Amino acid sequence: MASEITVIPNGSVTSPQGFTAGATYAGIRAYTPDKVDLGILFSEQPTTAAGTYSTNKILSPSVTVTKESVAGGVTRGVIVNSGCANCAVGDQGYTDAQEMASLAAGVLGVDPSTMAASSTGIIGVELPMGLIRNAIGNIEQSPDGGHDFARSILTTDTVTKEIAVSFSAGGKRVTLAGCAKGSGMIHPNMATMLSYLTTDAQVDAAFLQETLGVVVDSTFNMIDIDGDSSTNDTVLLLANGASGVTLSKGTPEGDTFTAALLEVCTHLAREMVRDGEGATKLIEVTVEGAESVSDARLAARSVASSILVKTAIHGNDPNWGRIIMALGKSGAEMVEKNIGLYINDICIMESGLPIPVFRESLIASMQGTEVRILAKLNIGSGAATGWGCNMSEEFVTFNSAYTT
Amino acid sequence: MASEITVIPNGSVTSPQGFTAGATYAGIRAYTPDKVDLGILFSEQPTTAAGTYSTNKILSPSVTVTKESVAGGVTRGVIVNSGCANCAVGDQGYTDAQEMASLAAGVLGVDPSTMAASSTGIIGVELPMGLIRNAIGNIEQSPDGGHDFARSILTTDTVTKEIAVSFSAGGKRVTLAGCAKGSGMIHPNMATMLSYLTTDAQVDAAFLQETLGVVVDSTFNMIDIDGDSSTNDTVLLLANGASGVTLSKGTPEGDTFTAALLEVCTHLAREMVRDGEGATKLIEVTVEGAESVSDARLAARSVASSILVKTAIHGNDPNWGRIIMALGKSGAEMVEKNIGLYINDICIMESGLPIPVFRESLIASMQGTEVRILAKLNIGSGAATGWGCNMSEEFVTFNSAYTT
Repeated sequence: MASEITVIPNGSVTSPQGFTAGATYAGIRAYTPDKVDLGILFSEQPTTAAGTYSTNKILSPSVTVTKESVAGGVTRGVIVNSGCANCAVGDQGYTDAQEMASLAAGVLGVDPSTMAASSTGIIGVELPMGLIRNAIGNIEQSPDGGHDFARSILTTDTVTKEIAVSFSAGGKRVTLAGCAKGSGMIHPNMATMLSYLTTDAQVDAAFLQETLGVVVDSTFNMIDIDGDSSTNDTVLLLANGASGVTLSKGTPEGDTFTAALLEVCTHLAREMVRDGEGATKLIEVTVEGAESVSDARLAARSVASSILVKTAIHGNDPNWGRIIMALGKSGAEMVEKNIGLYINDICIMESGLPIPVFRESLIASMQGTEVRILAKLNIGSGAATGWGCNMSEEFVTFNSAYTT
Repeated sequence: MASEITVIPNGSVTSPQGFTAGATYAGIRAYTPDKVDLGILFSEQPTTAAGTYSTNKILSPSVTVTKESVAGGVTRGVIVNSGCANCAVGDQGYTDAQEMASLAAGVLGVDPSTMAASSTGIIGVELPMGLIRNAIGNIEQSPDGGHDFARSILTTDTVTKEIAVSFSAGGKRVTLAGCAKGSGMIHPNMATMLSYLTTDAQVDAAFLQETLGVVVDSTFNMIDIDGDSSTNDTVLLLANGASGVTLSKGTPEGDTFTAALLEVCTHLAREMVRDGEGATKLIEVTVEGAESVSDARLAARSVASSILVKTAIHGNDPNWGRIIMALGKSGAEMVEKNIGLYINDICIMESGLPIPVFRESLIASMQGTEVRILAKLNIGSGAATGWGCNMSEEFVTFNSAYTT
């Protein structure tokens, strides 16, 4: 019998045992009170690590350093800067990412190859290494530092995204936690984002990587803010075993771990979209009855990322023809006369034919902060859910002057 | 030696010999003075026709009727309504599209199967056939009716898009013309659009279809306004032979025809993007040195359709990291250290490294109504050009209230 998964109030990435974190203001981003832009997440014991990364052909060397650390088999933690993506700066980018990891390793007293590194921010300018060298000593590692770390990775986000859950296994308590940042350049296929996940379970590397891949495909890879994909996307999961619980594939406890990871990543993915640049509404798109799960994902992603759907929902405009258009252009198999369509549980179309809907009640239902779209393709059993956000005038204003 | 291609001042789809056109206001769209929403383009002689169509799985039955007419081998013309897409309305859509073609055929005295039909506008409402039946008799066919026809196909467009060119072949004059409408749901892979092309050359069907496919791939399929793809896209090319000139594949005159078609479609594609919803700037993206032409097209389309590039250019923000991001996510092969990047001829990056650019002069160069981006991948010889437009706050406002 699977154990119940409980959300820990005010949880953070240091909720699991044996993790510390801290952050400081290095001066990489423009100063405002309480701003932090350089953070470290650290495990007191060596961890097993798993990661998924951007598929963009132009990749930040910080991602490369993280991949190398994870491939090395022993990861102790990650250092993250916001404000500068450390991307498209030639060979200097790799040198700087390595030095950043080494600086963190130095203050933590561990081998440099065990530290991962991430960067997020403007592309095409070099990391201000002088500032980072000056600031590295100011980071105080603490078992309560998870919230500060979560703040240090933000760029245009307006709020942190954090969650921790726990479940019992073998009479002990396992904790799993995560934080994430958005909130632009976000589109499926490694949604443009950073997320750090921690657990005090002991998990072998193969199971950890496999279960992370499965969960990311149905969470972070199913969200869209602006259709663009960044050069720096990273999801990093660290398992340090401090709980004394070992989890394996194919066991009830292993399955509970996967369920907990799905819960954590779903929460972070949804919160990331909800905090999309200029966004005020979360759009949840569910596709059922597709020929396959991959078809359902294609269709849900197509609707959740359609600019014309996003702008219509911004205006509470039940222009469902755009949803049909986005389903049709997705590449997923469909038969028009089989399609059923719902907005907020109100049936708009059945068997491919529009239903005479009381338009005012439909518009009224769209005023809230979440809009749910359900498409029943009725040709198979594939199902998937994706998330997007409304596109507002503020999004355009904001993105017209990001560097100027 | 190829003949010179000359632009005809104030040309229209009735500039080629033997074509007539006309339009009327049927009441499908909201009334404003001078508005027309139902048009007919007609050839006095049977034509050879070629077409390219939307690849959306949800297709307007009007497109189906057009495909059937073209497949029939004899097309006399096309009837077009704006305001209603005749899409997602079940079997009634096909019945109505057929009746629309029949009504036109009736007043023109030709076989119904020789008339194509197109619809553009809101998805999910039935064509108001009563209005169309009432209005059909009011359309006056005239050899000067091309401009009226061009107006009748518009939806959110602010101006008509029209051009006619001519060249000499065998001592005679061949004329080729076109009109088109945008200006939303526009993205490569049959850009969402309608375009009608006419010529008085005699061209066999195979060559006509082949050359249209080649030209559409490098013109209409290389533009983007909002990343969405419509259910009604149609490009229809009618060749009626009225000039007395027969053109064949592999001849100098045939090549001139292809060049003329490229000139006409490039003009219409660019004008369509320039008139994109809320757009004030044309963005021209050229990719050179790609591994293949298809890679160059992928990369150019990715940049031209990136929301973050579109919004940055809207604000005259030289945030070229977003261009690099969009190149990298395109799927095209590239090697970072080989990339050169230019905005309006100003070199931003060479050998993958940023050039110290005088930022103010770069911003100044972006104030105009056209912004040119050139990416040199330097790994092969594939080249392509794509077009997009800036994304403005007006675009969002407009698309938040399209049906309400």
